[in-house]
Amino acid sequence: MNVNERIAALRGVMEEKGIDIYIVPTADFHQSEYVGGYFKARKYITGFSGSAGTAVITKDEARLWTDGRYFIQAAKQLEGTIVELMKMGEPEVPSLEDYVKQALPEGGTIGFDGRVVAMEEGCRYRKMAEEKKGKLLYGEDLIDQIWEERPKLSEEPVFSLDIRYTGETVKNKLERIRKVMRECGVSTHILTTLDDICWTLNIRGNDIEFFPLVLSYAMITEKQVQLYIDEAKLNEEIRESFKEEGIILHPYNAIYEDVKSFKETEVILIDPVKLNYALYSNIPEDVKKVERANPEILFKAMKNPIEVKNIRQAELKDSVAHVRFMKWLKENVGKTKITEMSAVDKLDGFRKEMGNFIRPSFEPISSFGEHAAIVHYTSSPETDVELCEGNLYLTDTGAGFYEGSTDITRTYALGEIPQVMKDHFTLVAISNLQLAGARFLRGCTGINLDILARKPFWDRGLNFNHGTGHGVGYLLNIHEGPAGIRWKYSARDSHVLEEGMILTDEPGIYIEGSHGIRLENELLVCKGEKNEYGQFMYLEPITYIPMDLDAVNPDMMSEDEKKLLNAYHKTVYEKIAPYLDDEEKEWLKKYTREI
Amino acid sequence: MNVNERIAALRGVMEEKGIDIYIVPTADFHQSEYVGGYFKARKYITGFSGSAGTAVITKDEARLWTDGRYFIQAAKQLEGTIVELMKMGEPEVPSLEDYVKQALPEGGTIGFDGRVVAMEEGCRYRKMAEEKKGKLLYGEDLIDQIWEERPKLSEEPVFSLDIRYTGETVKNKLERIRKVMRECGVSTHILTTLDDICWTLNIRGNDIEFFPLVLSYAMITEKQVQLYIDEAKLNEEIRESFKEEGIILHPYNAIYEDVKSFKETEVILIDPVKLNYALYSNIPEDVKKVERANPEILFKAMKNPIEVKNIRQAELKDSVAHVRFMKWLKENVGKTKITEMSAVDKLDGFRKEMGNFIRPSFEPISSFGEHAAIVHYTSSPETDVELCEGNLYLTDTGAGFYEGSTDITRTYALGEIPQVMKDHFTLVAISNLQLAGARFLRGCTGINLDILARKPFWDRGLNFNHGTGHGVGYLLNIHEGPAGIRWKYSARDSHVLEEGMILTDEPGIYIEGSHGIRLENELLVCKGEKNEYGQFMYLEPITYIPMDLDAVNPDMMSEDEKKLLNAYHKTVYEKIAPYLDDEEKEWLKKYTREI
Repeated sequence: MNVNERIAALRGVMEEKGIDIYIVPTADFHQSEYVGGYFKARKYITGFSGSAGTAVITKDEARLWTDGRYFIQAAKQLEGTIVELMKMGEPEVPSLEDYVKQALPEGGTIGFDGRVVAMEEGCRYRKMAEEKKGKLLYGEDLIDQIWEERPKLSEEPVFSLDIRYTGETVKNKLERIRKVMRECGVSTHILTTLDDICWTLNIRGNDIEFFPLVLSYAMITEKQVQLYIDEAKLNEEIRESFKEEGIILHPYNAIYEDVKSFKETEVILIDPVKLNYALYSNIPEDVKKVERANPEILFKAMKNPIEVKNIRQAELKDSVAHVRFMKWLKENVGKTKITEMSAVDKLDGFRKEMGNFIRPSFEPISSFGEHAAIVHYTSSPETDVELCEGNLYLTDTGAGFYEGSTDITRTYALGEIPQVMKDHFTLVAISNLQLAGARFLRGCTGINLDILARKPFWDRGLNFNHGTGHGVGYLLNIHEGPAGIRWKYSARDSHVLEEGMILTDEPGIYIEGSHGIRLENELLVCKGEKNEYGQFMYLEPITYIPMDLDAVNPDMMSEDEKKLLNAYHKTVYEKIAPYLDDEEKEWLKKYTREI
Repeated sequence: MNVNERIAALRGVMEEKGIDIYIVPTADFHQSEYVGGYFKARKYITGFSGSAGTAVITKDEARLWTDGRYFIQAAKQLEGTIVELMKMGEPEVPSLEDYVKQALPEGGTIGFDGRVVAMEEGCRYRKMAEEKKGKLLYGEDLIDQIWEERPKLSEEPVFSLDIRYTGETVKNKLERIRKVMRECGVSTHILTTLDDICWTLNIRGNDIEFFPLVLSYAMITEKQVQLYIDEAKLNEEIRESFKEEGIILHPYNAIYEDVKSFKETEVILIDPVKLNYALYSNIPEDVKKVERANPEILFKAMKNPIEVKNIRQAELKDSVAHVRFMKWLKENVGKTKITEMSAVDKLDGFRKEMGNFIRPSFEPISSFGEHAAIVHYTSSPETDVELCEGNLYLTDTGAGFYEGSTDITRTYALGEIPQVMKDHFTLVAISNLQLAGARFLRGCTGINLDILARKPFWDRGLNFNHGTGHGVGYLLNIHEGPAGIRWKYSARDSHVLEEGMILTDEPGIYIEGSHGIRLENELLVCKGEKNEYGQFMYLEPITYIPMDLDAVNPDMMSEDEKKLLNAYHKTVYEKIAPYLDDEEKEWLKKYTREI
């Protein structure tokens, strides 16, 4: 079946069930960012393969909401289907929920799989249905009923992450979590987010794409942890250690029944943004619920000293791989056949040479020329092109090492490039360096700092249509809360910047049909001087890869900006040279020279 | 009676009434920033004369909470009293409400005059009392019972502000307000804030210090306005025009009885931050209340084109006065006797010469040397000192012209000053200019922009302990919401920056016991280019006074920063020279020269 046929089939089932509007988000039962093949229902029903988006199907319409990163890609992938693209955040484009509200007829029914919709969102749909004297059906996965050859749920094994990588025992983490639970007066903390569970239990797995996570749910009480997981994934050693920590195993899906039997006297800690609607609805109404962000979110974002030491090592290793890749690229473009996809393989090859490499840490973006203007472009055999001189090549990829995950973007000039590309590259470099140079008082959030990156753009009437930076998980999610760098407030991404947080710094510029540029380093939030004015903080870039001087226009830079770039390149050379042979050193010297 | 005796007397009345904790804020019945003499109860009971602060008296303790602007002044004024200074925002200092909560004994009673406490705050006290199974007494003004020779309520006449100053008729303003009322589904809008009432009715008066406001309350309905005011203040013409607009007069205090008779079917729009607790408590509980910021707050902050034209004129006039004052100061210091207080008179004299001057727009700050380190220092005959060479003189004053209110700070070098003062002055100038140069996308708030002003400080491990900028009212309050420039979120001061808003730009540095520097211009928020990235906005400084080049260290400035200062000085000369004679022009040329 093609997309239009699938939608027709879905409408058939919708009619059977009396559903007027069916919502298909991009989610598994855990609100994960990437999902395993089993969960790619939204891709199945629309054809759009981006990592973010929600489809809404009515009797007459089929619409897909996605954000600025995917406008161009989605438009292409929806071509030839009846699915209409809704560009989120653009003026005149109704929000998804406004649309559902308006499209729902009096007495109509909204349907979705309650396990893939977040609690708060589900509650809003319930309210909409109530207001129209209609119904909400959340107990069935209609896509499952039309999806032939749906992939199976993952059965990949779990592995434990050693204390020399995690820096903190499960016992200690549970103690910290239980302290918060006591402060909130709760008896049980339901945890459904895979990264929070894996962080707490010091385990990793292979159940979803790119992120080494394990499909599971957990309920933490004062003495025990009830863990809902496919037991076949666990080896003897892990089972033993779980037993010692008071971790009791249950079948993966048993939680939906178990929560029904909570007693009235229980107080449950849930994260309304993370819990799914079906699970929430199964908890008896008279059980008291404390709603707040999972305490694990802040805990895991503030990396401990051992994690920081490891992450520095991971960044160093990935930087060495990037430097070798850059040299190889500069020396071989136009001579050897290099395509977007083969370039990724080459870079991953250099990464593997560094040791302790597990796998890419997210879906790689490797884009040449106009493809790079598509912010989250994914090359596929159909779109793959050969790199050639005269334009820019962008790589936004990452590695999962045991020492941590990286998320790095570089853009390289291939041969001589037009002046406008150099000017744009220089602008992006200035932006990146200005943010990285931030010093600020403790208490600041990314909202305070964002303008440091945007000022060079805004001064020129330009902008980039995505956040400037996000937290990075340690072999967990690559986009990790609760802090980020953006100019608009976002409830889960605007936490005060605390020591040990790792944030990306990734401004960019995208000229449709021509070129795209992004430069992304990771920044470590550090404590600086404490004086009468308070505790000062600063950011330290821990990614050490040249910003391609072949693409820099020094005439556009002020003396202070040149100083920033020269200082960064000096550090790059100092950090990376010890890992290189003489020829590589000579080459790096040239690409980190003072301008 | 001295302060300690007054507190003893108050404790006597407290004991009589069975009150354990009595709270005395700095407020009239309208939550005004400055208050008339009748309302200076907090000053009476503590001796502290600053414009912000709250006293809490218990059986054993007397404490005063105030903010960073007043730490030094309050410490001095509380000397010799039993009142303990609580520095708001400092670590280890409990918030006022935390203190009250902790100090209240089981079954104890909190007391305050419910007319001078905001509704939300009063509700929190009520909750505290309930939690301790205690009581709340808000019906009596205990200070009144001990205050001999309390000043009378103001009886000053009201004047109307012509359409050539307001730019909008009362009719039109009421239409806009009623449109919001209809959108909120409310039948009555209670208005207690004097600036909102005066703005709506295009009237001004003389009932509180500095701000030309009128003691009054209003209730706006679809057809009428019930205005509670001392009728004797109104002349025939104003009464006539009120009649035409459907404005019905009532005695000032009659509102407290009138709100008791609201019918159950009414829906009332109230501003929980602005309404006082007594008035709120008098509204029957079963009357539905819509709580939101008064719609007038945003309306009046976005100045209309006629107001903007007038305000530009007011700033120009005040700038000419300042330039003449600066010249006079530079030429006479060390020769003529000039004191902090006489300097203010001299500056106001130059202002009066410009015509249409009503009165100072707020309490003037005129401070020499170490006095300038006290952020909101007020010179008095006891503290007044003579200005002499070798230090800095700071003037933060404003004029109320018919064309609008100004709020301007300049700091001048008197004779040759030490290098450290020049370096600090240069830092403040850089900060001021960097913020003024902001270009940004519509949607930004002052929280996004604040770091432009703080970066030069933070980069050097310095800071200033006050907001960077505030909105300025048009012959209303000098500090006007809903937008400001600060780095921490504040519910009533973090609105998106909109075209026509006027904000101050006033970074400073304060070295206790030595010197203080602040440079304050007013900025007009303007619309810039609109392109594919959105609507760009920019800030235009509309204050045109030299930043004293005798105090600038050019070696500290980057080329870009010098460009900003030179461009500003070029504009100063162009705008001001036409008003000057040849000798003054020559002088200004020198003080606006390129560096």
